[in-house]
Amino acid sequence: MRPSGRAPDQMRSLAFEPGFTKHAEGSCLVSFGDTRVLVTASVEEKVPPFLRGKGSGWVTAEYGMLPRATHTRGAREAAKGKQSGRTQEIQRLIGRSLRAVTDLKLLGERQIVLDCDVIQADGGTRTAAISGAWVALRLAVNGFMGQLSGDPIKTQVAAVSCGIHEGTPVLDLDYLEDSNAHSDGNFVLTGDGNIVEAQLTAEGALFDEEALLRLLRLARIGCAQIFEAQLKAVGR
Amino acid sequence: MRPSGRAPDQMRSLAFEPGFTKHAEGSCLVSFGDTRVLVTASVEEKVPPFLRGKGSGWVTAEYGMLPRATHTRGAREAAKGKQSGRTQEIQRLIGRSLRAVTDLKLLGERQIVLDCDVIQADGGTRTAAISGAWVALRLAVNGFMGQLSGDPIKTQVAAVSCGIHEGTPVLDLDYLEDSNAHSDGNFVLTGDGNIVEAQLTAEGALFDEEALLRLLRLARIGCAQIFEAQLKAVGR
Amino acid sequence: MRPSGRAPDQMRSLAFEPGFTKHAEGSCLVSFGDTRVLVTASVEEKVPPFLRGKGSGWVTAEYGMLPRATHTRGAREAAKGKQSGRTQEIQRLIGRSLRAVTDLKLLGERQIVLDCDVIQADGGTRTAAISGAWVALRLAVNGFMGQLSGDPIKTQVAAVSCGIHEGTPVLDLDYLEDSNAHSDGNFVLTGDGNIVEAQLTAEGALFDEEALLRLLRLARIGCAQIFEAQLKAVGR
Amino acid sequence: MRPSGRAPDQMRSLAFEPGFTKHAEGSCLVSFGDTRVLVTASVEEKVPPFLRGKGSGWVTAEYGMLPRATHTRGAREAAKGKQSGRTQEIQRLIGRSLRAVTDLKLLGERQIVLDCDVIQADGGTRTAAISGAWVALRLAVNGFMGQLSGDPIKTQVAAVSCGIHEGTPVLDLDYLEDSNAHSDGNFVLTGDGNIVEAQLTAEGALFDEEALLRLLRLARIGCAQIFEAQLKAVGR
Amino acid sequence: MRPSGRAPDQMRSLAFEPGFTKHAEGSCLVSFGDTRVLVTASVEEKVPPFLRGKGSGWVTAEYGMLPRATHTRGAREAAKGKQSGRTQEIQRLIGRSLRAVTDLKLLGERQIVLDCDVIQADGGTRTAAISGAWVALRLAVNGFMGQLSGDPIKTQVAAVSCGIHEGTPVLDLDYLEDSNAHSDGNFVLTGDGNIVEAQLTAEGALFDEEALLRLLRLARIGCAQIFEAQLKAVGR
Amino acid sequence: MRPSGRAPDQMRSLAFEPGFTKHAEGSCLVSFGDTRVLVTASVEEKVPPFLRGKGSGWVTAEYGMLPRATHTRGAREAAKGKQSGRTQEIQRLIGRSLRAVTDLKLLGERQIVLDCDVIQADGGTRTAAISGAWVALRLAVNGFMGQLSGDPIKTQVAAVSCGIHEGTPVLDLDYLEDSNAHSDGNFVLTGDGNIVEAQLTAEGALFDEEALLRLLRLARIGCAQIFEAQLKAVGR
Repeated sequence: MRPSGRAPDQMRSLAFEPGFTKHAEGSCLVSFGDTRVLVTASVEEKVPPFLRGKGSGWVTAEYGMLPRATHTRGAREAAKGKQSGRTQEIQRLIGRSLRAVTDLKLLGERQIVLDCDVIQADGGTRTAAISGAWVALRLAVNGFMGQLSGDPIKTQVAAVSCGIHEGTPVLDLDYLEDSNAHSDGNFVLTGDGNIVEAQLTAEGALFDEEALLRLLRLARIGCAQIFEAQLKAVGR
Repeated sequence: MRPSGRAPDQMRSLAFEPGFTKHAEGSCLVSFGDTRVLVTASVEEKVPPFLRGKGSGWVTAEYGMLPRATHTRGAREAAKGKQSGRTQEIQRLIGRSLRAVTDLKLLGERQIVLDCDVIQADGGTRTAAISGAWVALRLAVNGFMGQLSGDPIKTQVAAVSCGIHEGTPVLDLDYLEDSNAHSDGNFVLTGDGNIVEAQLTAEGALFDEEALLRLLRLARIGCAQIFEAQLKAVGR
Repeated sequence: MRPSGRAPDQMRSLAFEPGFTKHAEGSCLVSFGDTRVLVTASVEEKVPPFLRGKGSGWVTAEYGMLPRATHTRGAREAAKGKQSGRTQEIQRLIGRSLRAVTDLKLLGERQIVLDCDVIQADGGTRTAAISGAWVALRLAVNGFMGQLSGDPIKTQVAAVSCGIHEGTPVLDLDYLEDSNAHSDGNFVLTGDGNIVEAQLTAEGALFDEEALLRLLRLARIGCAQIFEAQLKAVGR
Repeated sequence: MRPSGRAPDQMRSLAFEPGFTKHAEGSCLVSFGDTRVLVTASVEEKVPPFLRGKGSGWVTAEYGMLPRATHTRGAREAAKGKQSGRTQEIQRLIGRSLRAVTDLKLLGERQIVLDCDVIQADGGTRTAAISGAWVALRLAVNGFMGQLSGDPIKTQVAAVSCGIHEGTPVLDLDYLEDSNAHSDGNFVLTGDGNIVEAQLTAEGALFDEEALLRLLRLARIGCAQIFEAQLKAVGR
Repeated sequence: MRPSGRAPDQMRSLAFEPGFTKHAEGSCLVSFGDTRVLVTASVEEKVPPFLRGKGSGWVTAEYGMLPRATHTRGAREAAKGKQSGRTQEIQRLIGRSLRAVTDLKLLGERQIVLDCDVIQADGGTRTAAISGAWVALRLAVNGFMGQLSGDPIKTQVAAVSCGIHEGTPVLDLDYLEDSNAHSDGNFVLTGDGNIVEAQLTAEGALFDEEALLRLLRLARIGCAQIFEAQLKAVGR
Repeated sequence: MRPSGRAPDQMRSLAFEPGFTKHAEGSCLVSFGDTRVLVTASVEEKVPPFLRGKGSGWVTAEYGMLPRATHTRGAREAAKGKQSGRTQEIQRLIGRSLRAVTDLKLLGERQIVLDCDVIQADGGTRTAAISGAWVALRLAVNGFMGQLSGDPIKTQVAAVSCGIHEGTPVLDLDYLEDSNAHSDGNFVLTGDGNIVEAQLTAEGALFDEEALLRLLRLARIGCAQIFEAQLKAVGR
């Protein structure tokens, strides 16, 4: 029995609130249950040095957590003067995930920065961030599609966590489950059924090939719902 | 004529949304027009080193701006590895302002950290932050009033900006006015009519004693409305 | 009764020693009583990036305190690896104050950096720094006036602190008064009678409109003396 | 055809040189082909703050690359003043992997730090580091087994990379393959057949469930050889 | 012929102004010609962690240069966020030199911090700093001699630079000579004729044993004059 | 009697292993007894900003110590976020020493970076680094001699430490001797008999002119052996 009373393959309530802020070219407040992440997509007419003059664009991400997004206050990274290893790991994952569904050539020499800031955390902030980032990216690209020769977004991308909770594989872990899970993982999947990233970590109990496959199947169930909600959010 | 069409002594629409996040002991999303700041109050059962064992509490503040709170994206301070002078100046001002209306002895040996994070900026983020911080502080203190011998919050505190815009003193500058103001200032006032802080800066045109007094009078008008909205937000 | 025996509207002894160092284009050792600040003005034939190619110059300031300028030794900011919020607040104030009396267009595309280093501190280091910076700036500009079409320095600028000490408004607080003042402020005034900056902070007791005006009047008295001493120092 | 002429399921030549340095309680120079990583295990009679007094030990890792371990010189992280996101991600992975096979209670209140420094890089530095770290850890623990009530190392742990190279799943990618792989991953497996970590990333082409399983099977082949070589290195 | 017209074994004019600042337990403004360094000695009733409880004191030094002490303005180290290698090298040398003549046991568990800040630079700042630091240290120790069982200062210490200028060994190089010297060095000598430190560096031309000895003899001549001036400064 | 049983003028066993790593243009693992330093020479077709367009090359060095190169583990400088004063002092010394025997004009507009990383430390890491750096530099320069009009390496350079151990001047101190030496020094000598650098420091006992000369003579004996071993390593 899950602490939240959810069925093993049941997602938390999902919400995408597009256009949450007015300045960004694309923005979205995404909620996976009580986890809320604000994603903004900023379009910049320049690319990082290693891409200059190569006719290719770039998509990158930054991730942050407000100090009191969590149960007890965490130190502000700006005040500490550096980003934690966890922060850097997450923002690298978000960037790779969104680039995996973007045709950087079609984007032209521009960069889109996806800022993912966790307003409230209750487990799964990185998967909510990736899922919301697709919405913000889609909205931002819509704004300059007229200048492009084709749509640089090849397909949707979404992410969800899965784990073994008290011996049962479950979908979309909340904080309570996450803290107690024997092993868990994050899957990033595309709208056309492929895997972009799979990261599984055993804590306490290890896991085997069968468990890996069961978690992947749960992830497919979750991402299907996310894909649907994303489309509604961008008005398709 | 103000760009927004407001009268010289007219505030932008004010809103305080208490309890915006679930983990913090007190929280509030404050809006001064399109400026939106999330303030959380975190209660910690410890005080900074210089106060240990002295039977006194502490109130402090941190301030941050999400990278795309503004018209063009600003670099993330956590990624740059340091807080700007502007950030530090603002968070020191917020802390002083709230301490000015708090009886630190009555608070007991605990610290309240006020995190003020700007979700969207349109001028006046520091004054919105101070005004919202009072609401978050009030709500946080309410939660442990049973452990105290008296109310440590002596009175309300609110802040508003004023400036000379095209020769006319105006109240509560938005971004457009702020960028063009010849001189402006921030006033922090208490519920019982006193001045906590007054900061006036001339840019371009200088100002004289009479202008200073006219701005102060506008600030009184603005703060009166803020005080009223704060009380509603905390349910009094 | 003031600890120093001074009358409420009495400044400490003022001294400006121009040309204190030989390399700087302008320099001045300014003393407000036992507070001694060395200011150097360095002329650089380049401007910050945001001004390049715009035909305008820039004036900026940096502030520092020698570790043992104070009663007990403070940590060296270079060794700590960052400047405190207080340092940054002060150097921003000095820069704004000097720019307020400078015609940046007339200056041409060059930058003047005002380094204000406190040799000995006894209260009022920022006001001494601003007052001395004007002398260093004046001397530095004199050195290249021949290359300019007009004098970029529009008027004098000076600063002084005031505060309520044991119920009495007093001028030019020394360290003892500053530590005990219920509320105090810094005024930056121009030679032609206008206000550049006014910063008032209540600590302990708050203050009202009348107190504000009384402090401003004291500031005018103090700045009049500083203006006179500045003129002597630059040989006018 | 692989650039190196290896068969798809063929590892590079493996070597573990135990006791490479004399000061460390355990050390090992591990080679996966031309990739060479020096791992030292340092035993410290203290634990991180969050474990103090809890009767549990800790195993952690740090990772670094000598500036000229690579084809072109990379900037020294100590000189840049911070560790890259990649470095932090890798050292977190190494630490988790070794903790997964360690009984921290049996270790007692001591910490073992595994320093993994890449002397020469040719792909697979993190998998070589994990595999070599087990040898260094084993040697270090051997040194104080007399003080323990049981062996804290529950089983072996090894890691290897796999990827899709020109359409074919291949084992243990070298630099040339790694730079061109359409998708690749790292598997960390235990001596008793379980998965500790699985990380798969699609670059360019995405991958599906079948590919994931084929890579996992390759990883099992590679790790079996590593396990054997590890045992020889520690003299069992 | 030296640019300054001095004889090869002629020092610049020497001056020690004791008590230059009022807060420090010992202070001295030392001048070697146009090189002026303010040294303060701060007595702290605590020692660094590695000495706690060992009944021994410590003497350490910090060195800094005001940004415009030099011909062209150098960046402020506090603003850059780190001390240069040169700064660290010099402050380590000053600390070692003063510890060499101090009986740390007799000092008791207290630390003396020598802050050496260069007000104006014209070559030889580190040698002036060492020579002035002895005066500041002596004055500071005089202040608490009553609490000690003996004088912890065993003898005087002084330093001077020497170099080969256009083929001639010369004493006490000024900036012009220093920039053009083919090889130069710094000698730190004690009042009883011993060498504490000798550092020689060849730039351009190398030097041989005879040159080394000739420079050392010049250093003895210079230090003899410094010792005499130090004694006068401390009133002996 | 030396702890190692060596005669006073006896070096530890010397070894230079050229070509230790495959990517660097020149590399060498140098051993002075148990002290082992890996030096790589990286050739970069650019020079530092201050040399651009001046037709001159540059040689610079960086130094690091693996965390467990020493008896007890030292903190990783990359993790601490800064290089110690000792590290900076040593890398500056290595750079100066190698530049002293290089004709930078003949090198052309390219930079050679010498990375000296201590794998294992037992005293004398900086002298081993300098001696090994010459081998790496020689090998790197050999690789592009065809592009040059002459050999930019004017002569050999080597370094060795000497010190007074229990009253006796001894050559090439190991860790045990180094920790107990009353005074010691490092000499950097050229193949044609000149001094590049001499650094002597008295700890505890001071030393006089005669001791200085005796140490220098020991250094000549040691460097003669190093020069011979260097030549063998580079195949001459």
